[in-house]
Amino acid sequence: MSLPATYLQMLSTLTEDGELRMELVEQKMPTPKPGQVIIKVEATPVNPSDLGVMFGMADAAASTTAGSGAATKLSAPVSSQGMRVMTARIGQPLPVGNEGAGTVVAAGDDKEAQALMGKTVAAMGGGMYGQYRCVDAIMCMPLLDGNTAKDGASSFVNPLTALCMVENMRMDGHTALVHTAAASNLGQMLNRICQADGVELVNIVRKKEQADILSAMGAKYIVDSSSDTFLADLTDAVHATGATLAFDATGGGTLASTILSAMEGAAARTPGAYSIYGSVAHKQVFLYGGLDTSPTTLTRGYGMAWGVGGWLLPNFLAKAGLEVAGRLRTRVANELKTTFASNYTDEISLTEALQADVVRKYQAKTTGEKFLICPQKDI
Amino acid sequence: MSLPATYLQMLSTLTEDGELRMELVEQKMPTPKPGQVIIKVEATPVNPSDLGVMFGMADAAASTTAGSGAATKLSAPVSSQGMRVMTARIGQPLPVGNEGAGTVVAAGDDKEAQALMGKTVAAMGGGMYGQYRCVDAIMCMPLLDGNTAKDGASSFVNPLTALCMVENMRMDGHTALVHTAAASNLGQMLNRICQADGVELVNIVRKKEQADILSAMGAKYIVDSSSDTFLADLTDAVHATGATLAFDATGGGTLASTILSAMEGAAARTPGAYSIYGSVAHKQVFLYGGLDTSPTTLTRGYGMAWGVGGWLLPNFLAKAGLEVAGRLRTRVANELKTTFASNYTDEISLTEALQADVVRKYQAKTTGEKFLICPQKDI
Repeated sequence: MSLPATYLQMLSTLTEDGELRMELVEQKMPTPKPGQVIIKVEATPVNPSDLGVMFGMADAAASTTAGSGAATKLSAPVSSQGMRVMTARIGQPLPVGNEGAGTVVAAGDDKEAQALMGKTVAAMGGGMYGQYRCVDAIMCMPLLDGNTAKDGASSFVNPLTALCMVENMRMDGHTALVHTAAASNLGQMLNRICQADGVELVNIVRKKEQADILSAMGAKYIVDSSSDTFLADLTDAVHATGATLAFDATGGGTLASTILSAMEGAAARTPGAYSIYGSVAHKQVFLYGGLDTSPTTLTRGYGMAWGVGGWLLPNFLAKAGLEVAGRLRTRVANELKTTFASNYTDEISLTEALQADVVRKYQAKTTGEKFLICPQKDI
Repeated sequence: MSLPATYLQMLSTLTEDGELRMELVEQKMPTPKPGQVIIKVEATPVNPSDLGVMFGMADAAASTTAGSGAATKLSAPVSSQGMRVMTARIGQPLPVGNEGAGTVVAAGDDKEAQALMGKTVAAMGGGMYGQYRCVDAIMCMPLLDGNTAKDGASSFVNPLTALCMVENMRMDGHTALVHTAAASNLGQMLNRICQADGVELVNIVRKKEQADILSAMGAKYIVDSSSDTFLADLTDAVHATGATLAFDATGGGTLASTILSAMEGAAARTPGAYSIYGSVAHKQVFLYGGLDTSPTTLTRGYGMAWGVGGWLLPNFLAKAGLEVAGRLRTRVANELKTTFASNYTDEISLTEALQADVVRKYQAKTTGEKFLICPQKDI
């Protein structure tokens, strides 16, 4: 089978005059090196983490589209503060799309690469918003027979993040978890994992509809942050579960601090000598997302044994090591249509992904809505 | 030698009606258990960490004194918010004074205890603001011949904290340090340790006088946070030293966040691929004090590989283990009058420590001022 000489790839560029530009750029089809394969990308999701690379600090909601077909261009304005924060990316065309799946249509000479020829594989290769993508064979996860590229498009970011939260919990000696924005696709996976593994999970949501989703899944601890009794409810749930580790998708505001207050309040319910330094067990909140872009405010009213920090999947995987990464990947492949099933509300082409009205929809990050880009759809 | 039947000890109690009361309470002289000794306390410093136990959230500056001699009582008002935060200590008389030194005047039957009879020792036993203190013999650090109780009064809190900062740096794979309130007694010790050990140290101060103190000690990197060019100066110093770990004595406000911004800015100066997730090396700020009681505000403009958290000496020592603690203690004993020398501006009795005008002085935590309580002085 002969491949086309070129293909289209989506790139995001911040220009010096304050414009964030996304467009399809024609790339020369590479010849795979011995250990590489070329994937014909068939399905690649729009994750919140992709939006960060696509838009950065640009005002995506104010974006406009010009041109059509392969010449479609999206433009979003960037404030002067946004320009300051993103100085380092000015003029650099960034490939977008963290993960995706498709068919291996060319392979290098190595045995590992050749073994993937014709297979449907998933990969977290970066630059997946394109018609083709050349990646190292060892980066590919072959899907089980019968699973399609659409089934496997989201095999990495959400499944591995959810699995690594539980892995991180065990590694650091915690025994239960708190999770925010808990009705998200990722949050639902985390509920399935925790139920299967017997790990207690406190789900924090903002709305009754979100609570209902989790309730229907059999979640035991659901706390609504919009409730007047939020802190008391959270403290009760943290006390019941013994959770001393939280993963927060919102990042900004006072939520992380409130979680630490609840953990300290729960610890104080256990009789023991009073110490002005608070409880001794380490209480940790990892901020793995930034749905709330305002500063993080910490009241520090929870003693001295606490931590707050950023959390990023690749950094954790690097720390956890290859054995752990391999074990988790195998679990994802085996449970792709159960534990790690993703639902997509919209399937769009590469050019549709550059339409301003579509951008406004997927950029809203509405619970339950998830977009899948199908790069083989007509542009 | 026969001991008195009773002795006076300072206790701090939060009453239900919003009063923080400090007073001298007559205690029965204990009989030491086999492994214990009784120290006649001769010198015990007023550290910022002691003030936390003494006053908590009370308004120490508004305190008043009543009575005289052994009946002296200090009273400080507590706001309703302070009462909420300190609910757990209401009605509990707390012993105060973390560390001190004196002569062992009684010992239990164990060989280790007997070996200390008549020796001048330092101890971090808690409850050291009293005429006597019964502690486990293994908690005692015998001073070298010729060193007095006054020399050894501050053998633990500041020396071990400064040593453990360097120890923590090595344990977590960092190679240089940032320190705030850097001209403090502790900060000066840290400078001596870092110079002796060849560790690069970035000193953050708020005033020129503080910079002058450190400059005279040979400190290489001194940055003034009150300067208009603070962030740029700090970024330069962090870049020059490669520091990715900071210890912050202030705790509140934006200082921790600014330090992380400087670390990220310094990392960005090393050429490499741009990532929206920021630099990969972990950047950490530990808050070990709370000179600024306002909330900690984090802008999060420094990627995902960062952490902020509380830091407490006993928690770190527990993690580091006995071998490390023993090694550090030996170093303190050997370098007590050089690296770990403390200067006291005032020597006061137990009753003087309860005088409102004296409280206002030591509670101000002025750089260079340090109070030593001498419990054997006439009350």
